[in-house]
Amino acid sequence: MPKLITTRTRIADLGKPRIIVIGGGFGGLEVIKALKGQKAQVVLFDKYNHHTFQPLLYQVATSGLETNAIVAPFRKLFGTQSDFYFRLGEVKRIRPEENYIETSIGGVKYDYLVIATGAVTNFYGMDEVAKNSSSMKNIVDATKLRNKIIRQLEYALLTEDNEVMNSLMDFVIVGGGPTGVELAGALTELKKNVFPKDYKELDMRQMDIHLVEASPRLLNGMSTQAGEKAYRFLTDMGVKVHLNAAVKSYDGYEILLSSGERLISRSLIWAAGVKGNPIAGINEAAITSGNRILVDNYNRVKGYENIFAIGDVALMEGDSKFPKGHPMMAPPAQQQGRLVAKNITNMIRQRPLKPFSYFDKGSMATIGRNKAVVDLRGIRFQGMFAWYVWMFVHLMSIVGFRNKVFTFFSWMWNYFSYDRSNRLIIGRNEEKINQDELTKQGV
Amino acid sequence: MPKLITTRTRIADLGKPRIIVIGGGFGGLEVIKALKGQKAQVVLFDKYNHHTFQPLLYQVATSGLETNAIVAPFRKLFGTQSDFYFRLGEVKRIRPEENYIETSIGGVKYDYLVIATGAVTNFYGMDEVAKNSSSMKNIVDATKLRNKIIRQLEYALLTEDNEVMNSLMDFVIVGGGPTGVELAGALTELKKNVFPKDYKELDMRQMDIHLVEASPRLLNGMSTQAGEKAYRFLTDMGVKVHLNAAVKSYDGYEILLSSGERLISRSLIWAAGVKGNPIAGINEAAITSGNRILVDNYNRVKGYENIFAIGDVALMEGDSKFPKGHPMMAPPAQQQGRLVAKNITNMIRQRPLKPFSYFDKGSMATIGRNKAVVDLRGIRFQGMFAWYVWMFVHLMSIVGFRNKVFTFFSWMWNYFSYDRSNRLIIGRNEEKINQDELTKQGV
Repeated sequence: MPKLITTRTRIADLGKPRIIVIGGGFGGLEVIKALKGQKAQVVLFDKYNHHTFQPLLYQVATSGLETNAIVAPFRKLFGTQSDFYFRLGEVKRIRPEENYIETSIGGVKYDYLVIATGAVTNFYGMDEVAKNSSSMKNIVDATKLRNKIIRQLEYALLTEDNEVMNSLMDFVIVGGGPTGVELAGALTELKKNVFPKDYKELDMRQMDIHLVEASPRLLNGMSTQAGEKAYRFLTDMGVKVHLNAAVKSYDGYEILLSSGERLISRSLIWAAGVKGNPIAGINEAAITSGNRILVDNYNRVKGYENIFAIGDVALMEGDSKFPKGHPMMAPPAQQQGRLVAKNITNMIRQRPLKPFSYFDKGSMATIGRNKAVVDLRGIRFQGMFAWYVWMFVHLMSIVGFRNKVFTFFSWMWNYFSYDRSNRLIIGRNEEKINQDELTKQGV
Repeated sequence: MPKLITTRTRIADLGKPRIIVIGGGFGGLEVIKALKGQKAQVVLFDKYNHHTFQPLLYQVATSGLETNAIVAPFRKLFGTQSDFYFRLGEVKRIRPEENYIETSIGGVKYDYLVIATGAVTNFYGMDEVAKNSSSMKNIVDATKLRNKIIRQLEYALLTEDNEVMNSLMDFVIVGGGPTGVELAGALTELKKNVFPKDYKELDMRQMDIHLVEASPRLLNGMSTQAGEKAYRFLTDMGVKVHLNAAVKSYDGYEILLSSGERLISRSLIWAAGVKGNPIAGINEAAITSGNRILVDNYNRVKGYENIFAIGDVALMEGDSKFPKGHPMMAPPAQQQGRLVAKNITNMIRQRPLKPFSYFDKGSMATIGRNKAVVDLRGIRFQGMFAWYVWMFVHLMSIVGFRNKVFTFFSWMWNYFSYDRSNRLIIGRNEEKINQDELTKQGV
């Protein structure tokens, strides 16, 4: 069988400036969109062939949405944009002195490079915790977590030992940011509306959902009012919220908190932090706190003229309101993406660059049925109306019209049926609890 | 970490006869449904936690339907049925003399046992072909095939070698039954309507779809008229149909046919046959041709009073119209399932049993947009109206109201947009073409 010999990525030379975007997340998509119609070749590299709407991954993990509702193939998104090229591959290294990138499918030169590689889960060096935890950064993660949650309940049916049963039925979520809060809410909905019907053999009062947060409050990025209300919503729903508690260790069974408390659970979901995901080859001096790439206020990577970094992977100095960098969420990435596209065009046309200024629209989180907290430029509200706002904003933000329609239908369906139809275990055998754990004695 | 000690499956003893159903396919579901309200405990064992609507797996593989539209969790289907128990586990062995089954999660006794384990792909002993081919018996298979089809086109972009490019862009489907014919049609739709937009860099005329069938005609289970029309539909659409041609060997690259012809393709999809999937412990004498379990006309396994087999895994002797057993498709399994449920009830009440008689409603296959062939009890028609009938019948057969609605919407969407939105590669790294094949030279 002849090998597929790939020495280069075979991207046509159009005789126009070539702008390579690495990563098709929120930031990358905006760069590409904003370059439409410009006299430039736009090339996107991504490990996946689709954009993922990360804010709703937790709904995939809790059986509320099908995977395909929150992803969109890049070729579908940009199929009609002329001079756009997509390559499915991982960028391994940048060689800035040659304007060249090495990728898993060959090498290619660029004129302008935009690093939009986002963030990865940060376990702060706790390898044992990393090994035994679930996280939620992509569709495979979310599907694996969905499989695990359902499988734990199936296994809980098989034991009469109280501690073993609790280790299966209890879930510990670490991190009281939007992801942790939303996941805790969604799991509680499953516990309340779905699992009692599915698992009549189990006593659902035994299922505990813990939310562990190292700081003294929830939703640190939002107002005190939002944090307090989220705390009240969650505790009213029965979630056990542990504030001022950090995870010290986790062996897959026992969680030791900094408060000295011990929790027993086979399911720890880590939503306690992310770090930048830079690419090798960038001047080490440009990698700063949180593993993010230091950029100037045009999003140019320190030390380079034609390399930009945007979104989660970038840390911009000089914004007095955000001395530690902009929040690692969609809006800064999108706004930076649009401006970088414009500034690259300015560079091509030899026009002056425009500095970035972050327009903070606020943020929001949903806690469960009819419950959300919203902070919008000075206005803060919580409850049912906030929940409608949350739904509307997220629906409008999901990429692709078809996805909006299908997500809307799914939400309506879930709301009126109190059901979650996607409670499916669709996975490979290697995901199952190690068969050794299911020791058969004297069968 | 304490082990999950499982000595038995902890299925409550209700003091009623216990009927264990192995496998929740078309047949198993009917048994369970028909036992509703009877004075019996019904236990379902399945390796998956969901029913899969197998006839539409090919649409998942060709990006037409999302996975979750064609599956339904058992606990959702039967959550309200009293005395119903589900266990996620694989039945490893039957011990008929003890009325006992061994499973991956422990052992349990039964009063009545229904084997509804269906069929597995039959490679007729050709291990090399099995190793290098894709098949489509479950959701994981279908998703892997979808990933592979899209990945091949992504890789085709990377080569200028004509043979290598054709090995990636050509697809060979083996088996001219409904699955092979429908898959060939769906792939042609992708080639015609989706891929030209997605892969403007490729010359789509290079993409060949081959359909290989060992017998002299397509759709052997249907009328001559249906087979001939399907042949004409497919060849008009550009599919290269090879009749009287069996696969002799396939090394993952070159396919040798019995006609002497050689085809080059990295993608061989095997839809050329299935065989029964019986369980160990059954009297060997009861395993007959096609690895199916010999049953009497009450679906009782030869040699046992209280063990039944239904559907694809069962071969019933004595039906003069089907001397080699009933066709391995949904209707016989469903009809047998309903009758077995009734006959078990009869046995419990010590009433006489009713023999099985197959009511053949006919069969149908779709070839592509607006094209299908239908044989219904004496009436045969093909074309647009047949296509409507095909859609209606399949929509009504999909398990679950929500799935019907979502499949209907997806089909409407695909029809009017000429699009297939699910062209997603959602998989693990081990699925990728071996990185060795992507030899980087002098990057």
